[in-house]
Amino acid sequence: MPADQVIKVAIAGINGRMGRTSVQAISNAPDLQIVGAFGKEGAHYVGKSLSGLTGISIPNKADILVSNGFSDCLAHSSPDVLLDFTEAKSSFEYGVAAIGKKIRPILGTSGIPVEHLEKLKEAASREKVGALVVPNFSIGAVFMMSVARQAANFFDNVEIVETHKLGKKDAPSGTAMHTAREIQKSGKTFNVSPIKETELVAGARGATMPNGVHVHSIRLPSILSLQEVMFGSEGELLTIRHDSFNTSCFARGILLAIRSVIKLDALEIGLEKSMLGKA
Amino acid sequence: MPADQVIKVAIAGINGRMGRTSVQAISNAPDLQIVGAFGKEGAHYVGKSLSGLTGISIPNKADILVSNGFSDCLAHSSPDVLLDFTEAKSSFEYGVAAIGKKIRPILGTSGIPVEHLEKLKEAASREKVGALVVPNFSIGAVFMMSVARQAANFFDNVEIVETHKLGKKDAPSGTAMHTAREIQKSGKTFNVSPIKETELVAGARGATMPNGVHVHSIRLPSILSLQEVMFGSEGELLTIRHDSFNTSCFARGILLAIRSVIKLDALEIGLEKSMLGKA
Amino acid sequence: MPADQVIKVAIAGINGRMGRTSVQAISNAPDLQIVGAFGKEGAHYVGKSLSGLTGISIPNKADILVSNGFSDCLAHSSPDVLLDFTEAKSSFEYGVAAIGKKIRPILGTSGIPVEHLEKLKEAASREKVGALVVPNFSIGAVFMMSVARQAANFFDNVEIVETHKLGKKDAPSGTAMHTAREIQKSGKTFNVSPIKETELVAGARGATMPNGVHVHSIRLPSILSLQEVMFGSEGELLTIRHDSFNTSCFARGILLAIRSVIKLDALEIGLEKSMLGKA
Amino acid sequence: MPADQVIKVAIAGINGRMGRTSVQAISNAPDLQIVGAFGKEGAHYVGKSLSGLTGISIPNKADILVSNGFSDCLAHSSPDVLLDFTEAKSSFEYGVAAIGKKIRPILGTSGIPVEHLEKLKEAASREKVGALVVPNFSIGAVFMMSVARQAANFFDNVEIVETHKLGKKDAPSGTAMHTAREIQKSGKTFNVSPIKETELVAGARGATMPNGVHVHSIRLPSILSLQEVMFGSEGELLTIRHDSFNTSCFARGILLAIRSVIKLDALEIGLEKSMLGKA
Repeated sequence: MPADQVIKVAIAGINGRMGRTSVQAISNAPDLQIVGAFGKEGAHYVGKSLSGLTGISIPNKADILVSNGFSDCLAHSSPDVLLDFTEAKSSFEYGVAAIGKKIRPILGTSGIPVEHLEKLKEAASREKVGALVVPNFSIGAVFMMSVARQAANFFDNVEIVETHKLGKKDAPSGTAMHTAREIQKSGKTFNVSPIKETELVAGARGATMPNGVHVHSIRLPSILSLQEVMFGSEGELLTIRHDSFNTSCFARGILLAIRSVIKLDALEIGLEKSMLGKA
Repeated sequence: MPADQVIKVAIAGINGRMGRTSVQAISNAPDLQIVGAFGKEGAHYVGKSLSGLTGISIPNKADILVSNGFSDCLAHSSPDVLLDFTEAKSSFEYGVAAIGKKIRPILGTSGIPVEHLEKLKEAASREKVGALVVPNFSIGAVFMMSVARQAANFFDNVEIVETHKLGKKDAPSGTAMHTAREIQKSGKTFNVSPIKETELVAGARGATMPNGVHVHSIRLPSILSLQEVMFGSEGELLTIRHDSFNTSCFARGILLAIRSVIKLDALEIGLEKSMLGKA
Repeated sequence: MPADQVIKVAIAGINGRMGRTSVQAISNAPDLQIVGAFGKEGAHYVGKSLSGLTGISIPNKADILVSNGFSDCLAHSSPDVLLDFTEAKSSFEYGVAAIGKKIRPILGTSGIPVEHLEKLKEAASREKVGALVVPNFSIGAVFMMSVARQAANFFDNVEIVETHKLGKKDAPSGTAMHTAREIQKSGKTFNVSPIKETELVAGARGATMPNGVHVHSIRLPSILSLQEVMFGSEGELLTIRHDSFNTSCFARGILLAIRSVIKLDALEIGLEKSMLGKA
Repeated sequence: MPADQVIKVAIAGINGRMGRTSVQAISNAPDLQIVGAFGKEGAHYVGKSLSGLTGISIPNKADILVSNGFSDCLAHSSPDVLLDFTEAKSSFEYGVAAIGKKIRPILGTSGIPVEHLEKLKEAASREKVGALVVPNFSIGAVFMMSVARQAANFFDNVEIVETHKLGKKDAPSGTAMHTAREIQKSGKTFNVSPIKETELVAGARGATMPNGVHVHSIRLPSILSLQEVMFGSEGELLTIRHDSFNTSCFARGILLAIRSVIKLDALEIGLEKSMLGKA
């Protein structure tokens, strides 16, 4: 790929886990190049080299210095894509600013409120600039949720069992809640019992979501993320299971997002369309 | 549904397991009616009542007598659909004959040779009559194979583990072989190992299919049918599992096939399109 | 085995599922013989032949007639063992009566109150007659509970997930409750979380048993009985899973119970000792 | 615990993965103290501090310098226990030497030949010094194998499925082979099929071990270690599954081994007796 076709990427939130995973993944991709990186303005690592900050060697490509915020980053580089791993509020603001400058934003957060999503959508359509909001970069997890939505049309009973590390604060997990919402798109009511069930100990039957989907949350040491979606019908059981072992599973999704957003001219939520377009 | 819109069905292979499952399923469906049934010509049960032969009560519908073969059946009834559970040769012959009479055949067998499938396809297109060849009536199993084919585009490693009842003659199972072929439609080579693997005991790594998919066959008492398709990538694992517990899981597929074939005007292989069209 | 060493068995509750399973299992065992069978006094099947009532052919052994209650049964036979599948109250009464006549009772119920168990224990010890109370005849389920009790000594985190057929009235299942009690014999408190967990939807974390064991109950069609006991520790997970597919899994436990009770001279609860003594 | 009751430990093979895991585990145990550590004679790290070499801070305890081999280590310290993670030959030699000096060896290797095990056994008995040979420090894995040996007495069918990281050289894994040997202690022949099975593709039925146990080896990215042992019988299935996620699962086994060997006066193979003695 000629140098002028390389996709130039700036990373917001460079000092977090996802920022580092991105540096690793992009550094190994011949068609991508990191041209800017920043975190909080005035952070102690401003001015450090990217390789020095992350401990990741960047082969065959120019190392860069960490900028002092987004404006400083844009003063020194011309990215095609802004990859953001900050939090909902700044993510929205960076996204709007990027679109205004014809830079395609990829916002890696699940917390952006609906009214902000609407504004991002309008801005992207007006400017005809691609934009992605990506709650989950794991291709396996995105696929699981897509399959669960499809399967909901063929089964009348479904329960979700998710397992995460002991010490996780909230139950159910965000992925389980999102999966339940995908299943609810079928418009059906699930798990209609022929009898009145009795819980001998409260909570036995798990959390009951709108439309009847049950969700059970297990917490055990050392399990990063595991989810099973069990669809039952007379005489059969279909189970979709996804295990995550470490953050390297996000690398593929990050690369897919960058290569997809370049071809878009509007806002898309989630990686599913990018995946199925590729399929 | 007015009586003249009820779909009239004849069943070939009435004395087998699938024949009986069909009688049960169709009897409970208000939009369907059994108008004919037959097995081998001259069989001992010719002339018996359907309810008497199968032990299934047929509520709110006329009982019928078992015919002495296909011709005898057609002499006494005018089916819209022929549901066939005989074997590959007779299935093909009944299929061609049915199409010639504008009766839509559903052939429930996996053994029809390619050249016969071609002839069925030509006949159906020529006569503009819907026809279905259905190797597997389990909606869950069909869905599993469809999902496996999709997932193959996103993962480079895949192994299949199937478990069936002790005493099953062949390994791998037909479903596992079919799943491997669906996965191979991706055109990829799977499970490329960075090293040369050594089997300390022959067979440890299972059966290796064209394109590198590994298949492992387990045989244990009392397990009707269980298959796991495991897709792996850096940091994650996606597993699709299907359990069959009894033949009642075929009932839904039989009903779906009957209601779908009525709307077709050509041959289709498998239930997948009927399902996804419905989704 | 000479005829005088054959163990003679009477069955109480002959018209139920377990009664029939027993007839099948005992009929195929050369060292055992059914000499009596009864259900409720005055039942419609009193006086029928055992093979006629159950539809089970009894090869190479004398068929018998169903008696009109326990007294009538004893008037016509001299059993060594009384195998009881009635309910808690009659089970206790038959048990005490049997011990008084030096007949060894096997009481297949989980509902006998503690004070009645005490009386059975005293009677058996006083008469030096073996007796068994068997809440679960599945050798696999008994083994699972035994292993769970052992594992509890080595792990600080444990959650139980049980799946039963849609339409089961109570949750958690009796087996799950019993497993939790076995785990509690370790005297430990489990699943101590480093943080305060929040349920975003009530019930997500399942039922919390005394000592902290969590239990999750799933209800899906066609699943007879499935339980997983998950033990977690830093860096590892140990799972014990038991699936029941049909009642034939009880046959082995019934035979083991009969052959064991003959060698006992006191009351024992559960099959575990009979199994481990055999191991 | 008074200082004179603290167990003093020397570590052989300090520069490997297990050496480091040991330093971490022992440093956090108030009743244990590292008094010596060494690797190959003349290694580049001889003379470094333990905390400097491993990057592990050693709270409330004296740091030590890495010795230049076993003799040098003994010249500067008086360990109660030698914890060895070298390879089979040196492990044996260090073990014999340690026993001669009344130091209890724990040899963490599976490769010691039978004749060397015999010599270690004789030496330990003669000197009345405890010694342990530990092929596997994972308490969960040891427990799984113990349970599998017990279950083999109650089931006639068993298959093992093990999954390890893509790139593992040998199949089946050492743990699977060892599990099969434990199962074979029952003296039974397993998986006797009522028919002649046919492999449509070679290897489908896996590796067949002496006595009929089948083993299937799966290789996928990112799976450190996963094994399922499936025991089947009429109507039921018992599965024992062990997942390892990282080396921290060995820490508990290392501590158990040290605390156990102190109480022994002869050689023991494996951690199972130490565990069950504790249970």
